[in-house]
Amino acid sequence: MFQAKIYVTLRKSVLDPQGSVVRKSLYALGYHNVQEVRIGRYMVVDLEVADRAEAEKQVRDMCDKLLVNPVIEDYTFELVEV
Amino acid sequence: MFQAKIYVTLRKSVLDPQGSVVRKSLYALGYHNVQEVRIGRYMVVDLEVADRAEAEKQVRDMCDKLLVNPVIEDYTFELVEV
Repeated sequence: MFQAKIYVTLRKSVLDPQGSVVRKSLYALGYHNVQEVRIGRYMVVDLEVADRAEAEKQVRDMCDKLLVNPVIEDYTFELVEV
Repeated sequence: MFQAKIYVTLRKSVLDPQGSVVRKSLYALGYHNVQEVRIGRYMVVDLEVADRAEAEKQVRDMCDKLLVNPVIEDYTFELVEV
């Protein structure tokens, strides 16, 4: 069994209003040295699959089909055998 | 300058309805071997600070005060000098 840890971020060119609000809130709390905040998703998917190559293929497939919006988002993932 | 990568996850004991919906959607797409999906947040914070110890203290502080809800969420983070 494999566990996929998937990190989804907005592409650099895409505005991140949520991150911008968090940055302002941090500023209001006294953290004046925060330059930028970007907010993405972190997904953990447990897969019942025998080998790593097959797991990798499936995770990439899932990201492209459902988990990630390729127009505005990028993703990376890592696989851990569990 | 440091970049903090913060991973926020729901505590194991907390139900994750969003993850559950994603699992069902993956099932409907033919991924019958997905055991569980948990969805969290991935935040990238750029900090203008000189040393690592100070950056670590600040990030922990921000998480406790604003970024994370300790009742239902856990977090880990890593710091990269940029």
